[in-house]
Amino acid sequence: MSMYGHNGGMTTQPALSPTEADVCCPSLTVSPLSLDDAQDFARILKSLADPTRLRLVSLIAGHEQQEACVCDLTEPVGLGQPTVSHHLKILVDAGVLRREKRGVWSYYSLEAATLNRLSEFLSPG
Amino acid sequence: MSMYGHNGGMTTQPALSPTEADVCCPSLTVSPLSLDDAQDFARILKSLADPTRLRLVSLIAGHEQQEACVCDLTEPVGLGQPTVSHHLKILVDAGVLRREKRGVWSYYSLEAATLNRLSEFLSPG
Repeated sequence: MSMYGHNGGMTTQPALSPTEADVCCPSLTVSPLSLDDAQDFARILKSLADPTRLRLVSLIAGHEQQEACVCDLTEPVGLGQPTVSHHLKILVDAGVLRREKRGVWSYYSLEAATLNRLSEFLSPG
Repeated sequence: MSMYGHNGGMTTQPALSPTEADVCCPSLTVSPLSLDDAQDFARILKSLADPTRLRLVSLIAGHEQQEACVCDLTEPVGLGQPTVSHHLKILVDAGVLRREKRGVWSYYSLEAATLNRLSEFLSPG
């Protein structure tokens, strides 16, 4: 979006078609929202619409090297490993967290692009 | 996270106390999230975690004078007035929409401060 090359003469800057613009950066309050985008963002929002899952994301973001395994998270949220794993799976499926298996543990880290996209989508600016 | 000022000697920059930081601008990925904030934001996120409600917010934002009554919204979302009113009530209760009664109709508009707060909360910064 930010890189337009120099083009002399009568040519105009290439503009995104509505469909491309939609794909690029849908906004809740600027462009009319397509059903596809509404379903897509509702799914991400739903994954975050739970106090425990918000706290898990916050704990992972604040953890050493911004990643954590289930074993790091059970005690701070006061829940057992199966419950925490269930919440983490919902966040991974929605693209909010990334899961990487190393040795016997899976490590969870933030998918910053998803949060950025959601934050920009919601901004009324 | 990316801005560490130069601080000679033992002095540090004044920091907000956890309580002040909390009141000012809780962030999902910067400050550790309190249970109160987690519940507060989960409630707002839940109100938006539905494709129809996202479309209603988008339609209101795009409507003339950025406000609309139920009568303007039923046709675009293809739902009856009671269902649309129910969705609008959830958004008003969560502070995402403002409701103003004028004559026989209620007019709904965006509570931009709530969306701003949520957008900043989610931004990975």
